Amino acid sequence: MKIYDIEGFPNPARVRIALAEKGATSDVEFVHVDVLGGEHRTEAFRHKNPDAAVPCLELSDGTHISQCNAITEYIDAAYTDGPSLTGTNAKERARISMMNTRAEIGLLNAVSTYFHHATPGLGPDLEVYQCGEWGNKQKEVAEQTMAYLDGVLANNDYLAGEAFSMADITAFAGLSFADFAKVEIPAKLTNLIAWREKVSSRPSIAA
Amino acid sequence: MKIYDIEGFPNPARVRIALAEKGATSDVEFVHVDVLGGEHRTEAFRHKNPDAAVPCLELSDGTHISQCNAITEYIDAAYTDGPSLTGTNAKERARISMMNTRAEIGLLNAVSTYFHHATPGLGPDLEVYQCGEWGNKQKEVAEQTMAYLDGVLANNDYLAGEAFSMADITAFAGLSFADFAKVEIPAKLTNLIAWREKVSSRPSIAA
Repeated sequence: MKIYDIEGFPNPARVRIALAEKGATSDVEFVHVDVLGGEHRTEAFRHKNPDAAVPCLELSDGTHISQCNAITEYIDAAYTDGPSLTGTNAKERARISMMNTRAEIGLLNAVSTYFHHATPGLGPDLEVYQCGEWGNKQKEVAEQTMAYLDGVLANNDYLAGEAFSMADITAFAGLSFADFAKVEIPAKLTNLIAWREKVSSRPSIAA
Repeated sequence: MKIYDIEGFPNPARVRIALAEKGATSDVEFVHVDVLGGEHRTEAFRHKNPDAAVPCLELSDGTHISQCNAITEYIDAAYTDGPSLTGTNAKERARISMMNTRAEIGLLNAVSTYFHHATPGLGPDLEVYQCGEWGNKQKEVAEQTMAYLDGVLANNDYLAGEAFSMADITAFAGLSFADFAKVEIPAKLTNLIAWREKVSSRPSIAA
Protein backbone atom coordinates (compact mmCIF):
# COMPACT_ATOMS: atom_id res chain seq x y z
CA MET A 1 0.00 0.00 0.00
CA LYS A 2 0.95 3.62 -0.50
CA ILE A 3 0.59 6.54 1.87
CA TYR A 4 0.67 10.05 0.50
CA ASP A 5 1.92 12.31 3.26
CA ILE A 6 4.64 14.63 4.47
CA GLU A 7 7.01 13.72 7.25
CA GLY A 8 6.79 15.65 10.50
CA PHE A 9 3.21 16.88 10.15
CA PRO A 10 0.80 15.94 12.97
CA ASN A 11 -1.76 13.72 11.21
CA PRO A 12 0.87 11.91 9.12
CA ALA A 13 2.72 11.29 12.40
CA ARG A 14 -0.35 9.57 13.89
CA VAL A 15 -0.45 7.12 10.99
CA ARG A 16 3.30 6.50 11.05
CA ILE A 17 3.25 5.77 14.79
CA ALA A 18 0.30 3.40 14.34
CA LEU A 19 2.14 1.59 11.54
CA ALA A 20 5.25 1.24 13.69
CA GLU A 21 3.22 -0.10 16.64
CA LYS A 22 1.78 -2.78 14.35
CA GLY A 23 5.10 -3.61 12.71
CA ALA A 24 3.65 -2.64 9.35
CA THR A 25 5.87 0.26 8.30
CA SER A 26 7.88 -1.79 5.81
CA ASP A 27 4.68 -2.67 3.89
CA VAL A 28 4.14 0.97 2.99
CA GLU A 29 5.52 3.02 0.13
CA PHE A 30 5.47 6.61 1.33
CA VAL A 31 4.86 9.21 -1.37
CA HIS A 32 5.88 12.74 -0.46
CA VAL A 33 3.24 15.42 -1.05
CA ASP A 34 4.53 18.98 -1.42
CA VAL A 35 2.08 20.49 1.05
CA LEU A 36 4.03 23.73 1.40
CA GLY A 37 3.81 24.07 -2.39
CA GLY A 38 0.06 23.40 -2.32
CA GLU A 39 0.17 20.02 -4.07
CA HIS A 40 -2.61 18.66 -1.79
CA ARG A 41 -4.99 21.23 -3.28
CA THR A 42 -4.40 20.33 -6.92
CA GLU A 43 -7.12 18.61 -8.93
CA ALA A 44 -4.90 15.53 -9.31
CA PHE A 45 -4.58 15.13 -5.56
CA ARG A 46 -8.25 15.93 -4.85
CA HIS A 47 -9.07 12.98 -7.08
CA LYS A 48 -7.36 10.82 -4.44
CA ASN A 49 -8.65 12.80 -1.47
CA PRO A 50 -11.45 15.35 -1.93
CA ASP A 51 -10.62 16.70 1.53
CA ALA A 52 -7.38 18.05 0.02
CA ALA A 53 -5.32 16.89 2.99
CA VAL A 54 -2.65 14.41 3.98
CA PRO A 55 -2.34 11.60 4.88
CA CYS A 56 -4.14 9.54 2.23
CA LEU A 57 -3.89 5.76 2.02
CA GLU A 58 -3.99 3.98 -1.34
CA LEU A 59 -4.77 0.26 -1.25
CA SER A 60 -3.47 -2.13 -3.89
CA ASP A 61 -6.94 -2.23 -5.52
CA GLY A 62 -6.83 1.53 -5.99
CA THR A 63 -9.19 2.41 -3.12
CA HIS A 64 -8.30 5.67 -1.41
CA ILE A 65 -8.87 6.11 2.30
CA SER A 66 -8.40 9.47 3.94
CA GLN A 67 -9.29 10.94 7.32
CA CYS A 68 -6.72 9.90 9.88
CA ASN A 69 -9.03 7.78 12.04
CA ALA A 70 -10.19 5.82 9.01
CA ILE A 71 -6.60 5.08 8.02
CA THR A 72 -5.59 3.98 11.50
CA GLU A 73 -8.79 1.92 11.74
CA TYR A 74 -7.69 0.16 8.55
CA ILE A 75 -4.17 -0.47 9.84
CA ASP A 76 -5.37 -1.79 13.19
CA ALA A 77 -7.91 -4.14 11.59
CA ALA A 78 -5.61 -5.33 8.80
CA TYR A 79 -2.60 -6.07 11.02
CA THR A 80 -3.30 -8.31 13.96
CA ASP A 81 0.27 -8.24 15.29
CA GLY A 82 1.24 -5.68 17.88
CA PRO A 83 -1.07 -4.08 20.43
CA SER A 84 -4.68 -3.41 19.52
CA LEU A 85 -4.92 0.34 19.02
CA THR A 86 -8.72 0.58 18.72
CA GLY A 87 -9.85 -2.07 21.23
CA THR A 88 -10.91 -5.71 21.17
CA ASN A 89 -14.41 -5.57 22.67
CA ALA A 90 -17.36 -3.19 22.68
CA LYS A 91 -16.43 -1.35 25.87
CA GLU A 92 -12.75 -0.97 24.97
CA ARG A 93 -13.62 0.22 21.47
CA ALA A 94 -16.03 2.78 22.89
CA ARG A 95 -13.63 4.12 25.52
CA ILE A 96 -10.80 4.44 23.01
CA SER A 97 -13.08 6.12 20.46
CA MET A 98 -14.35 8.56 23.09
CA MET A 99 -10.91 9.52 24.36
CA ASN A 100 -9.45 9.65 20.85
CA THR A 101 -12.21 12.06 19.84
CA ARG A 102 -11.63 14.24 22.90
CA ALA A 103 -7.89 14.36 22.17
CA GLU A 104 -8.53 15.05 18.50
CA ILE A 105 -11.22 17.73 18.73
CA GLY A 106 -10.07 19.30 21.96
CA LEU A 107 -6.32 19.24 21.45
CA LEU A 108 -4.97 18.37 18.00
CA ASN A 109 -7.69 20.04 15.93
CA ALA A 110 -7.96 22.96 18.35
CA VAL A 111 -4.20 23.63 18.09
CA SER A 112 -4.43 23.23 14.31
CA THR A 113 -7.25 25.76 14.06
CA TYR A 114 -5.30 28.19 16.25
CA PHE A 115 -2.21 27.73 14.09
CA HIS A 116 -4.00 28.10 10.75
CA HIS A 117 -6.31 30.95 11.80
CA ALA A 118 -4.65 33.01 14.51
CA THR A 119 -0.99 32.83 13.45
CA PRO A 120 0.63 33.22 10.00
CA GLY A 121 0.27 29.41 9.75
CA LEU A 122 1.70 28.09 6.50
CA GLY A 123 1.90 31.56 4.99
CA PRO A 124 -0.40 33.76 2.91
CA ASP A 125 -0.39 31.56 -0.20
CA LEU A 126 -1.91 28.64 1.71
CA GLU A 127 -3.88 30.40 4.45
CA VAL A 128 -6.42 31.92 2.08
CA TYR A 129 -9.11 32.26 4.75
CA GLN A 130 -8.41 33.03 8.37
CA CYS A 131 -10.78 33.76 11.25
CA GLY A 132 -8.50 35.02 14.00
CA GLU A 133 -11.19 35.25 16.66
CA TRP A 134 -12.13 31.60 16.26
CA GLY A 135 -8.48 30.60 16.12
CA ASN A 136 -7.74 32.27 19.43
CA LYS A 137 -10.82 30.68 21.01
CA GLN A 138 -9.49 27.27 19.95
CA LYS A 139 -6.22 27.97 21.74
CA GLU A 140 -8.27 28.28 24.93
CA VAL A 141 -9.99 24.98 24.09
CA ALA A 142 -6.59 23.30 23.67
CA GLU A 143 -5.44 24.60 27.05
CA GLN A 144 -8.63 23.37 28.72
CA THR A 145 -8.19 19.97 27.09
CA MET A 146 -4.61 19.69 28.36
CA ALA A 147 -5.93 20.24 31.89
CA TYR A 148 -8.71 17.68 31.32
CA LEU A 149 -6.26 15.05 30.01
CA ASP A 150 -3.98 15.69 32.98
CA GLY A 151 -6.91 14.84 35.26
CA VAL A 152 -7.64 11.63 33.36
CA LEU A 153 -4.00 10.60 33.71
CA ALA A 154 -4.13 11.09 37.48
CA ASN A 155 -6.08 7.80 37.66
CA ASN A 156 -5.10 5.97 34.46
CA ASP A 157 -1.82 4.78 32.94
CA TYR A 158 -3.03 5.77 29.48
CA LEU A 159 -5.85 7.93 28.18
CA ALA A 160 -8.32 5.10 27.64
CA GLY A 161 -7.30 3.08 30.70
CA GLU A 162 -4.58 0.48 31.28
CA ALA A 163 -3.39 0.08 27.71
CA PHE A 164 -1.75 2.33 25.14
CA SER A 165 -4.16 3.13 22.27
CA MET A 166 -4.94 5.46 19.39
CA ALA A 167 -6.14 8.00 21.95
CA ASP A 168 -2.56 8.29 23.22
CA ILE A 169 -1.17 8.58 19.71
CA THR A 170 -3.62 11.37 18.88
CA ALA A 171 -2.90 13.29 22.08
CA PHE A 172 0.84 12.84 21.61
CA ALA A 173 0.62 14.28 18.09
CA GLY A 174 -1.52 17.09 19.48
CA LEU A 175 1.18 18.03 22.00
CA SER A 176 3.85 17.95 19.29
CA PHE A 177 1.73 20.35 17.24
CA ALA A 178 1.24 22.49 20.38
CA ASP A 179 5.05 22.78 20.71
CA PHE A 180 5.31 23.81 17.09
CA ALA A 181 2.50 26.37 17.41
CA LYS A 182 3.92 27.64 20.72
CA VAL A 183 0.93 26.62 22.82
CA GLU A 184 2.63 25.84 26.11
CA ILE A 185 1.88 22.91 28.39
CA PRO A 186 1.51 24.44 31.86
CA ALA A 187 4.22 23.08 34.21
CA LYS A 188 1.58 22.17 36.80
CA LEU A 189 0.14 19.48 34.50
CA THR A 190 2.59 16.94 35.89
CA ASN A 191 0.54 13.86 34.95
CA LEU A 192 0.36 14.94 31.33
CA ILE A 193 4.07 15.75 31.23
CA ALA A 194 5.05 12.39 32.80
CA TRP A 195 2.73 10.51 30.40
CA ARG A 196 4.28 12.32 27.45
CA GLU A 197 7.76 11.31 28.59
CA LYS A 198 6.63 7.69 28.92
CA VAL A 199 4.92 7.62 25.52
CA SER A 200 7.84 9.31 23.77
CA SER A 201 10.13 6.44 24.82
CA ARG A 202 8.08 3.83 22.94
CA PRO A 203 10.05 2.34 20.03
CA SER A 204 7.31 3.47 17.60
CA ILE A 205 8.09 7.07 18.52
CA ALA A 206 11.66 7.15 19.81
CA ALA A 207 13.10 5.21 16.85
CA MET B 1 -28.07 0.39 29.93
CA LYS B 2 -29.16 4.01 30.21
CA ILE B 3 -28.89 6.78 27.68
CA TYR B 4 -29.12 10.37 28.83
CA ASP B 5 -30.44 12.40 25.93
CA ILE B 6 -33.24 14.55 24.59
CA GLU B 7 -35.58 13.39 21.87
CA GLY B 8 -35.43 15.12 18.50
CA PHE B 9 -31.89 16.49 18.77
CA PRO B 10 -29.46 15.45 16.02
CA ASN B 11 -26.81 13.46 17.91
CA PRO B 12 -29.37 11.68 20.11
CA ALA B 13 -31.19 10.80 16.88
CA ARG B 14 -28.07 9.10 15.49
CA VAL B 15 -27.89 6.84 18.53
CA ARG B 16 -31.62 6.09 18.53
CA ILE B 17 -31.53 5.13 14.83
CA ALA B 18 -28.48 2.90 15.42
CA LEU B 19 -30.27 1.20 18.33
CA ALA B 20 -33.37 0.60 16.20
CA GLU B 21 -31.27 -0.84 13.35
CA LYS B 22 -29.72 -3.32 15.78
CA GLY B 23 -33.03 -4.17 17.48
CA ALA B 24 -31.62 -2.94 20.76
CA THR B 25 -33.96 -0.06 21.65
CA SER B 26 -35.87 -2.03 24.26
CA ASP B 27 -32.65 -2.68 26.22
CA VAL B 28 -32.25 1.03 26.90
CA GLU B 29 -33.71 3.19 29.62
CA PHE B 30 -33.78 6.72 28.22
CA VAL B 31 -33.28 9.49 30.75
CA HIS B 32 -34.42 12.93 29.63
CA VAL B 33 -31.88 15.72 30.05
CA ASP B 34 -33.31 19.25 30.20
CA VAL B 35 -30.92 20.69 27.63
CA LEU B 36 -32.98 23.82 27.10
CA GLY B 37 -32.76 24.42 30.86
CA GLY B 38 -28.99 23.88 30.82
CA GLU B 39 -28.99 20.60 32.77
CA HIS B 40 -26.16 19.21 30.58
CA ARG B 41 -23.88 21.95 31.90
CA THR B 42 -24.44 21.27 35.60
CA GLU B 43 -21.67 19.77 37.69
CA ALA B 44 -23.76 16.64 38.27
CA PHE B 45 -24.06 16.00 34.55
CA ARG B 46 -20.44 16.88 33.79
CA HIS B 47 -19.51 14.11 36.21
CA LYS B 48 -21.12 11.73 33.70
CA ASN B 49 -19.91 13.58 30.62
CA PRO B 50 -17.21 16.26 30.91
CA ASP B 51 -18.08 17.35 27.37
CA ALA B 52 -21.38 18.67 28.79
CA ALA B 53 -23.38 17.26 25.91
CA VAL B 54 -25.96 14.62 25.07
CA PRO B 55 -26.17 11.75 24.36
CA CYS B 56 -24.30 9.93 27.12
CA LEU B 57 -24.41 6.16 27.57
CA GLU B 58 -24.25 4.59 31.03
CA LEU B 59 -23.34 0.90 31.16
CA SER B 60 -24.54 -1.37 33.95
CA ASP B 61 -21.07 -1.24 35.57
CA GLY B 62 -21.33 2.55 35.82
CA THR B 63 -18.99 3.34 32.90
CA HIS B 64 -20.00 6.45 30.99
CA ILE B 65 -19.44 6.68 27.25
CA SER B 66 -20.04 9.90 25.43
CA GLN B 67 -19.19 11.21 21.96
CA CYS B 68 -21.72 9.92 19.47
CA ASN B 69 -19.33 7.76 17.43
CA ALA B 70 -18.11 6.03 20.57
CA ILE B 71 -21.68 5.22 21.62
CA THR B 72 -22.64 3.86 18.20
CA GLU B 73 -19.36 1.91 18.09
CA TYR B 74 -20.40 0.32 21.38
CA ILE B 75 -23.90 -0.52 20.14
CA ASP B 76 -22.64 -2.00 16.88
CA ALA B 77 -20.01 -4.15 18.62
CA ALA B 78 -22.27 -5.24 21.49
CA TYR B 79 -25.25 -6.23 19.31
CA THR B 80 -24.46 -8.63 16.52
CA ASP B 81 -28.03 -8.78 15.18
CA GLY B 82 -29.07 -6.40 12.44
CA PRO B 83 -26.84 -4.88 9.80
CA SER B 84 -23.25 -4.02 10.66
CA LEU B 85 -23.15 -0.23 10.94
CA THR B 86 -19.37 0.15 11.22
CA GLY B 87 -18.14 -2.60 8.87
CA THR B 88 -16.94 -6.18 9.16
CA ASN B 89 -13.45 -6.02 7.65
CA ALA B 90 -10.59 -3.53 7.49
CA LYS B 91 -11.59 -1.92 4.19
CA GLU B 92 -15.28 -1.63 5.06
CA ARG B 93 -14.46 -0.20 8.48
CA ALA B 94 -12.13 2.35 6.91
CA ARG B 95 -14.59 3.46 4.21
CA ILE B 96 -17.43 3.82 6.69
CA SER B 97 -15.22 5.74 9.13
CA MET B 98 -14.02 8.05 6.35
CA MET B 99 -17.50 8.79 5.04
CA ASN B 100 -18.96 9.10 8.53
CA THR B 101 -16.31 11.67 9.38
CA ARG B 102 -16.95 13.63 6.20
CA ALA B 103 -20.70 13.66 6.93
CA GLU B 104 -20.08 14.60 10.55
CA ILE B 105 -17.50 17.35 10.15
CA GLY B 106 -18.71 18.68 6.83
CA LEU B 107 -22.45 18.51 7.35
CA LEU B 108 -23.76 17.80 10.85
CA ASN B 109 -21.11 19.69 12.81
CA ALA B 110 -20.96 22.47 10.21
CA VAL B 111 -24.72 23.02 10.44
CA SER B 112 -24.48 22.85 14.23
CA THR B 113 -21.77 25.49 14.32
CA TYR B 114 -23.80 27.71 11.98
CA PHE B 115 -26.87 27.28 14.18
CA HIS B 116 -25.10 27.93 17.48
CA HIS B 117 -22.89 30.79 16.26
CA ALA B 118 -24.64 32.62 13.41
CA THR B 119 -28.28 32.37 14.50
CA PRO B 120 -29.90 32.90 17.92
CA GLY B 121 -29.39 29.15 18.42
CA LEU B 122 -30.80 27.95 21.73
CA GLY B 123 -31.12 31.50 23.03
CA PRO B 124 -28.91 33.92 24.98
CA ASP B 125 -28.84 31.92 28.22
CA LEU B 126 -27.22 28.93 26.49
CA GLU B 127 -25.30 30.58 23.63
CA VAL B 128 -22.82 32.33 25.90
CA TYR B 129 -20.14 32.63 23.21
CA GLN B 130 -20.87 33.13 19.55
CA CYS B 131 -18.53 33.78 16.63
CA GLY B 132 -20.84 34.78 13.81
CA GLU B 133 -18.16 34.95 11.14
CA TRP B 134 -17.09 31.37 11.76
CA GLY B 135 -20.71 30.23 11.97
CA ASN B 136 -21.51 31.68 8.56
CA LYS B 137 -18.38 30.10 7.08
CA GLN B 138 -19.57 26.73 8.34
CA LYS B 139 -22.87 27.19 6.53
CA GLU B 140 -20.82 27.38 3.31
CA VAL B 141 -19.00 24.21 4.35
CA ALA B 142 -22.33 22.44 4.88
CA GLU B 143 -23.54 23.48 1.43
CA GLN B 144 -20.29 22.27 -0.17
CA THR B 145 -20.61 18.96 1.67
CA MET B 146 -24.17 18.47 0.43
CA ALA B 147 -22.86 18.84 -3.13
CA TYR B 148 -20.00 16.43 -2.41
CA LEU B 149 -22.35 13.81 -0.94
CA ASP B 150 -24.65 14.17 -3.95
CA GLY B 151 -21.68 13.29 -6.16
CA VAL B 152 -20.83 10.23 -4.07
CA LEU B 153 -24.44 9.05 -4.35
CA ALA B 154 -24.33 9.31 -8.15
CA ASN B 155 -22.26 6.10 -8.11
CA ASN B 156 -23.16 4.44 -4.82
CA ASP B 157 -26.39 3.21 -3.21
CA TYR B 158 -25.23 4.46 0.16
CA LEU B 159 -22.49 6.81 1.33
CA ALA B 160 -19.91 4.11 2.04
CA GLY B 161 -20.85 1.86 -0.89
CA GLU B 162 -23.47 -0.86 -1.31
CA ALA B 163 -24.64 -1.09 2.29
CA PHE B 164 -26.38 1.26 4.72
CA SER B 165 -24.01 2.32 7.52
CA MET B 166 -23.31 4.84 10.25
CA ALA B 167 -22.21 7.27 7.54
CA ASP B 168 -25.79 7.34 6.26
CA ILE B 169 -27.20 7.80 9.75
CA THR B 170 -24.86 10.72 10.40
CA ALA B 171 -25.64 12.41 7.09
CA PHE B 172 -29.37 11.85 7.58
CA ALA B 173 -29.20 13.52 11.00
CA GLY B 174 -27.17 16.31 9.44
CA LEU B 175 -29.89 16.99 6.88
CA SER B 176 -32.56 16.99 9.59
CA PHE B 177 -30.53 19.57 11.47
CA ALA B 178 -30.12 21.53 8.22
CA ASP B 179 -33.93 21.67 7.88
CA PHE B 180 -34.24 22.90 11.44
CA ALA B 181 -31.52 25.54 10.95
CA LYS B 182 -32.99 26.55 7.57
CA VAL B 183 -29.96 25.52 5.53
CA GLU B 184 -31.62 24.49 2.30
CA ILE B 185 -30.78 21.45 0.21
CA PRO B 186 -30.47 22.77 -3.36
CA ALA B 187 -33.12 21.17 -5.62
CA LYS B 188 -30.43 20.20 -8.15
CA LEU B 189 -28.90 17.71 -5.69
CA THR B 190 -31.25 14.99 -6.91
CA ASN B 191 -29.09 12.05 -5.79
CA LEU B 192 -28.96 13.37 -2.25
CA ILE B 193 -32.71 14.04 -2.20
CA ALA B 194 -33.54 10.56 -3.54
CA TRP B 195 -31.16 8.92 -1.04
CA ARG B 196 -32.78 10.85 1.80
CA GLU B 197 -36.21 9.64 0.73
CA LYS B 198 -34.97 6.04 0.63
CA VAL B 199 -33.25 6.26 4.02
CA SER B 200 -36.23 7.94 5.67
CA SER B 201 -38.41 4.94 4.80
CA ARG B 202 -36.26 2.52 6.83
CA PRO B 203 -38.19 1.13 9.82
CA SER B 204 -35.50 2.51 12.17
CA ILE B 205 -36.40 6.03 11.04
CA ALA B 206 -39.98 5.88 9.74
CA ALA B 207 -41.33 4.08 12.82
